Amino acid sequence: MPDRFEILHKDLAGRIGRLSTPHGTIETPLLMPVVNPHLPLITPGELAGIGADMIITNSYIINQDPDLKTRAMERGLHELLGFEGPIMTDSGAFQLSVYGDIDVQPMEILDFQFAIKSDIAVPLDIPTPPDVARDRAESELQTTEVRLQEAAAAADRSALLAGPVQGSTYPDLRERAGKFARDLGFDVYPVGGVVPLMEAYRYRDLVDVVVAAKKGLGSGVPVHLFGAGHPMIFALAAAMGCDLFDSAAYALYARQDRYLTVRGTWKLEEMNYLPCSCPVCQAHTLQELVDSPHKTRDLARHNLYVSLQEIRLVKQSIREGSLWDLLETRCRSHPRMLDGLKRLCSQGKWLEGLDTASKSTFFYLSPESASRPEVIRHARRVDRICLQGNVLITDDPDADKAGYDHVLNFKPPFGPYPAELSETYPFNAEVPEDADDAALDQAVKITKQLVRANPGARFTFRLKIGNLGERLKQS
Amino acid sequence: MPDRFEILHKDLAGRIGRLSTPHGTIETPLLMPVVNPHLPLITPGELAGIGADMIITNSYIINQDPDLKTRAMERGLHELLGFEGPIMTDSGAFQLSVYGDIDVQPMEILDFQFAIKSDIAVPLDIPTPPDVARDRAESELQTTEVRLQEAAAAADRSALLAGPVQGSTYPDLRERAGKFARDLGFDVYPVGGVVPLMEAYRYRDLVDVVVAAKKGLGSGVPVHLFGAGHPMIFALAAAMGCDLFDSAAYALYARQDRYLTVRGTWKLEEMNYLPCSCPVCQAHTLQELVDSPHKTRDLARHNLYVSLQEIRLVKQSIREGSLWDLLETRCRSHPRMLDGLKRLCSQGKWLEGLDTASKSTFFYLSPESASRPEVIRHARRVDRICLQGNVLITDDPDADKAGYDHVLNFKPPFGPYPAELSETYPFNAEVPEDADDAALDQAVKITKQLVRANPGARFTFRLKIGNLGERLKQS
Repeated sequence: MPDRFEILHKDLAGRIGRLSTPHGTIETPLLMPVVNPHLPLITPGELAGIGADMIITNSYIINQDPDLKTRAMERGLHELLGFEGPIMTDSGAFQLSVYGDIDVQPMEILDFQFAIKSDIAVPLDIPTPPDVARDRAESELQTTEVRLQEAAAAADRSALLAGPVQGSTYPDLRERAGKFARDLGFDVYPVGGVVPLMEAYRYRDLVDVVVAAKKGLGSGVPVHLFGAGHPMIFALAAAMGCDLFDSAAYALYARQDRYLTVRGTWKLEEMNYLPCSCPVCQAHTLQELVDSPHKTRDLARHNLYVSLQEIRLVKQSIREGSLWDLLETRCRSHPRMLDGLKRLCSQGKWLEGLDTASKSTFFYLSPESASRPEVIRHARRVDRICLQGNVLITDDPDADKAGYDHVLNFKPPFGPYPAELSETYPFNAEVPEDADDAALDQAVKITKQLVRANPGARFTFRLKIGNLGERLKQS
Repeated sequence: MPDRFEILHKDLAGRIGRLSTPHGTIETPLLMPVVNPHLPLITPGELAGIGADMIITNSYIINQDPDLKTRAMERGLHELLGFEGPIMTDSGAFQLSVYGDIDVQPMEILDFQFAIKSDIAVPLDIPTPPDVARDRAESELQTTEVRLQEAAAAADRSALLAGPVQGSTYPDLRERAGKFARDLGFDVYPVGGVVPLMEAYRYRDLVDVVVAAKKGLGSGVPVHLFGAGHPMIFALAAAMGCDLFDSAAYALYARQDRYLTVRGTWKLEEMNYLPCSCPVCQAHTLQELVDSPHKTRDLARHNLYVSLQEIRLVKQSIREGSLWDLLETRCRSHPRMLDGLKRLCSQGKWLEGLDTASKSTFFYLSPESASRPEVIRHARRVDRICLQGNVLITDDPDADKAGYDHVLNFKPPFGPYPAELSETYPFNAEVPEDADDAALDQAVKITKQLVRANPGARFTFRLKIGNLGERLKQS
């Protein structure tokens, strides 16, 4: 099997990648609008015009409808939907999660996806919801794993094959499930069963689940965060290494008169202005949109524009190494999003292991910035600095440096670093005028590591930052 | 003089207002694109199409050009520029600040603005730069004040008259200048001489200057932040009570291949994607934009779309009382913006006095949220709570409440509040799972105030939040 996924650029655990499918190569991170094969609110042709390079539809719905099924079998999925680019198909697992039972066999629906020329086929897994008892999560995962084995063995691999990762809200099960799927060898790895977490704004649990799955999957394979369609989540999800997203949200929210933004959702009736420049919001006043005979369609188009725009911003941020800065902004749209960022901070070592070493500029933007991979990395390496004799640690450029064998600059959150690196990333960081507690705590911790690693050196501190001496003594 | 400015909605020190001019009523906050009367990069007619309700141009440039001057005198400014809405005119003070000398007398250029039917005329003030010696700032301010007196006395008031506020980076001079202008009675109050602060990202000093000017001016009059044209600053400026902005930035940046966003600026060559849905970014790929024969014009149009969109978002945020939430997001685009927000936090009492009491939802999004006006207000009022007998303060809904005369809930950053208000704003705040130090510090401070105010009551604490008891004892 040739390697269908190529990683071009990295930032945090996120990346820009290229995924080859039978109907063309796409660039990730990528958002697939969900197309309802019965009545698409926006036709696939229009979706392409708005900027969708790939779509996803439901093979189970097609399979259940005799007319759609016949046309799909005869002419193929792409002609049925009128879309030339890659199309992923879902298997009915979502229907299974909603209705508890579906009317098709696992291998039957998988073979059907191959038959209608899906670009990415998904085996029928069991989407276990969050918070179920552990034995249920385990036994459902076991069923999913058996089906993945069958799928991996039987697939002809003309299409790409997805290996879903389940395990409810048990991180160890998610990690095991990721490793199991990875060992079988699929082309794309959807993390499933997370929609209830996102609907309930449980972003902290979402981080636990996704990071665990990623640990099991390793960093080289493409990951699909199944059901993630709200633009407020894309930066966080991409930072964890999710590459594919699918949006039913653009249409579902539109049907409820909901207007998506990168900071959340408004009901149309709550709005007084249209704070967007997309073609829909430029062509209408708010009142015209409210009164439009095509209101739902117009809203869906706006929702899609803003979603695809955010994907492009995430990609731009990965390219320039500023994805953390975007996280700082995006995770301040809601306290639960901040919880998610804090949880990601607690995975600092994992993130540091994946993050690239050199970027453009380090901006210190909140206490969470003290947990950036660059800081973790400096903390990990600081005891490699070998010092002897008299060592000056100072944040004062005018300090008298005569008589010292080594001079280290001091800047929270990094603490001490060799003075000759002060114009080098990340020590050229832009930091606030006054360091916050999180930055000072990190700086003190790193300073202590350095001092401990060099018992033969005599340290002198010349620090302008208030009561830092006290902090150093205390700790 | 009739009251030409009406305030409709308020949030923080910001507001949505209506300003009446000879050429129509505009809604504030409002951005006036700067039009160069010689060669507008985008014609005023097109500006109107993009969404500009008002523009600003330079009367000094018109006055210096015999041809423009003649046409403006004969047919008026609006026909000269081809714009039907309100037009503000600058006086040449900017040229004075750049070239040190200009070729016109103060009353001459003011009369000229009236003669050509400007909607808002600006006397020729002295735009003192930041950081000058105090005696220079004072003497230049004196000159400005003499000119304001002459202008106020002479103006026929068919146009609105602006009373600029100078004073360099001396807050006491800014406040005095604001009061002086306010006492003379103008229609609009530009805060001038701040462009160098914004160019150098000195947002902390900008907050000092603007808040001081606002304190002098009072809250009822419209304020123009002269030279503020980058969308990243609009939320912060509006939160301080600035109502009018002017953008030369949209064109100046475009001429340097710079692409504006609400989080900063990109050089076109640094970009790999166009993360925007405006008509320009929808009609072009990045490469097409780079290669466009109209590149500068296209970029200027994008810059203007994104700027006007941000003004609408600021207005939407004021309407729903969520301007602080927008600040939390916007001030995380750069550490210097965060410095600005922190400085605004230090003006908590001033802000609390202006902020409206009831809003939608309180989101705790960073340590800065602990300084929100709602928290300051609760701290100011908590000692009005009269307690006697046994008082329980708890964050545990399951705590046994039997035997207590009063039960108060406890939630950082508010600390204790009457349990019956827990579903009421702001105590229904959405807060992170784990309170940060700033929230805990505020909660402890407010708790101590309550305890001190009720020496006759016996307090019992049942708190689940870790080591809060220790914090309470320590402090």
